[in-house]
Amino acid sequence: MTTTLITNIASLVTNDPAQGDGTPLGLLTNAAVVLEDEHIAWVGPAAKAPAADETYDAEGRAAIPGFVDSHSHLVFAGDRTQEFNARMSGRAYSAGGIRTTVAATRAATDEDLEANLTRYLAEALHQGTTTFETKSGYGLTTEDEARALRIAARHTDEVTFLGAHIVSPDYAEDPAAYVDLVTGPMLDACAPHARWIDVFCEKGAFDGDQARAILTAGKAKGLHPRIHANQLSYGPGVQLAVELDAASADHCTHLTDADVDALAQGNTVATLLPGAEFSTRAQWPDARRLLDAGATVALSTDCNPGSSFTSSVPFCIALAVRDMGMTPDEAIWSATAGGAAALRRTDIGVLREGTRADLALLDAPSHVHLAYRPGVPLVSGVWRRGVRQV
Amino acid sequence: MTTTLITNIASLVTNDPAQGDGTPLGLLTNAAVVLEDEHIAWVGPAAKAPAADETYDAEGRAAIPGFVDSHSHLVFAGDRTQEFNARMSGRAYSAGGIRTTVAATRAATDEDLEANLTRYLAEALHQGTTTFETKSGYGLTTEDEARALRIAARHTDEVTFLGAHIVSPDYAEDPAAYVDLVTGPMLDACAPHARWIDVFCEKGAFDGDQARAILTAGKAKGLHPRIHANQLSYGPGVQLAVELDAASADHCTHLTDADVDALAQGNTVATLLPGAEFSTRAQWPDARRLLDAGATVALSTDCNPGSSFTSSVPFCIALAVRDMGMTPDEAIWSATAGGAAALRRTDIGVLREGTRADLALLDAPSHVHLAYRPGVPLVSGVWRRGVRQV
Ligand SMILES: [Zn+2]
Ligand SMILES: [Zn+2]
Repeated sequence: MTTTLITNIASLVTNDPAQGDGTPLGLLTNAAVVLEDEHIAWVGPAAKAPAADETYDAEGRAAIPGFVDSHSHLVFAGDRTQEFNARMSGRAYSAGGIRTTVAATRAATDEDLEANLTRYLAEALHQGTTTFETKSGYGLTTEDEARALRIAARHTDEVTFLGAHIVSPDYAEDPAAYVDLVTGPMLDACAPHARWIDVFCEKGAFDGDQARAILTAGKAKGLHPRIHANQLSYGPGVQLAVELDAASADHCTHLTDADVDALAQGNTVATLLPGAEFSTRAQWPDARRLLDAGATVALSTDCNPGSSFTSSVPFCIALAVRDMGMTPDEAIWSATAGGAAALRRTDIGVLREGTRADLALLDAPSHVHLAYRPGVPLVSGVWRRGVRQV
Repeated sequence: MTTTLITNIASLVTNDPAQGDGTPLGLLTNAAVVLEDEHIAWVGPAAKAPAADETYDAEGRAAIPGFVDSHSHLVFAGDRTQEFNARMSGRAYSAGGIRTTVAATRAATDEDLEANLTRYLAEALHQGTTTFETKSGYGLTTEDEARALRIAARHTDEVTFLGAHIVSPDYAEDPAAYVDLVTGPMLDACAPHARWIDVFCEKGAFDGDQARAILTAGKAKGLHPRIHANQLSYGPGVQLAVELDAASADHCTHLTDADVDALAQGNTVATLLPGAEFSTRAQWPDARRLLDAGATVALSTDCNPGSSFTSSVPFCIALAVRDMGMTPDEAIWSATAGGAAALRRTDIGVLREGTRADLALLDAPSHVHLAYRPGVPLVSGVWRRGVRQV
């Protein structure tokens, strides 16, 4: 057993309302934290901190729980620089879109895919992300989907089977047969490697009936549902998510009042992904409307090479504050405790005795600087499971 | 004399149209650069690179000229976290605004001001900025303005006297007397420490006649003009800048057709500062309109604790591409060669034999990733005057 005291924290976000100022952030000033092996052993005022084997002086920095990035697509090969460049330059581009990434991913070796994943994880870790979810969805064959999940599962417990990302180009003439594959042999091969099942429920991808069939089949195999819902247009995804007790409905850009009510009354988190709206110049999701209705909101990166190639949760926080009506406090809660809720986890996203020792130090006196200083890499220290990583 | 070869650069932005693809970026693939002491000695295809004393393998990364941040306000004390937080949370806040920073700056010791400046410079350097301009403007007394410039001049040649940032609160009842101070004793004390003179020409600050008097007085003392112009509303600033041959008109958010024509036909660069519009939720400047008219556009951070507390040029590039109609190529040119033009420098912002050996390596195969991967700290190596800094 090793204990580490991190002290002289000017401002500590605990996300434990029993702490500090009584707000959801549970903000403590002049605080300290004691880590014991993988867990938090103590949180409180620096002046009352117990002794520990090792001491780290935060020198007046702020600290927050490590970010929980509950939505990413990191098992892929290649990138889509030319497509992005053409879109942002107003030039025509005969893009393959997601098919470009599918082709590159299928062609890549296991080693290449894992090296790519590892690289983006290191990048995210340096920006304060200590937990991440990631998905398959660029294989779209039984073998390629299962391989993506096996590779992902070496790096995280939060692995999502997304065979239903798009209808595989191989089944363009017979989408129903692709749904049969996803709910049949592909699911059988993938379920052992995943915790979650996801579907892109959108015009041009999978409709409400298909999404229901896919998620229901996944549940029967022990996977828990989450849905890409209402990103590009109104649709049945959000209400289906609530009906099926999905952990999260992700994107939530186009919502009817009934959608908002369903999220407010159900147990499904609304996960907002502003990197996608930023990189596609799309309409922002209205976080304020969801929060005012009483829904639980998470913020994540959606990191993927097509529509949101950012691994930066701080960037998403800055966007959410500027353009989605969130206060800095709400955005930081949503990127930590909110992400944990979207993964139905209570052991992360909060700093209190017994939770995981996952936290980030900021080169700033307050968590508010994550929005106040947009684009600046402020994360200057990261502990994950009690071990300093950055 | 020491020579360093940086080779295996997948994609090199030279900003020398004589190089590479013939575009303004002068893009070379599979390139190399040789640094000789402080300067560039050779640029070309990696296969033809001459031998050097030392070799650095860029391993397929992209490289660009170091960013030239031609507009910042880094000599200050304190921050304005609570004011920002209240603004973004929709809460009333009896803010002192800029007066808060003026009071904190006056109260700070020289050592505190220099430590603060040094800290932000290190932060900017890690994000690829190798040249920066910075201003006084938070002292507003003869002694405090001169002290800010002396401190700044220890760290950069690009020092700007901005006694005319606002009318000093001490002269609230008699703005004309403050203009007399700025153009008289304050200018006498400040001119020896600065290269530039600037004025905030805006309703509530200094009108066109006052701005003209201040800049003209500065020119008589050997300072060259630049202007904060047309940020919050239409006004005379831009056309005054062109008339006085100012190196740059900065902000340029509210422009008439006559303003755009003046910039297109004159020698004044339009410096756009999207961090300010981001952090104040203001209307974006229309870079496309300026570029299409033939104006020269620079992109800078405006780093300051009130309206744009970012030191990240890559963040500004991402905003300019998403929201201001710039292509990724144009935004990167404007943040390098454009910044150099706004400082009337030809020795920086371009990589060609004889220019300064200031360049940045990116953890990416292409400069386009600065816009494609918003928020991600991609700068992984920085040379300034031929010395590796990061
Ligand atoms: Zn997604
Ligand atoms: Zn300014």
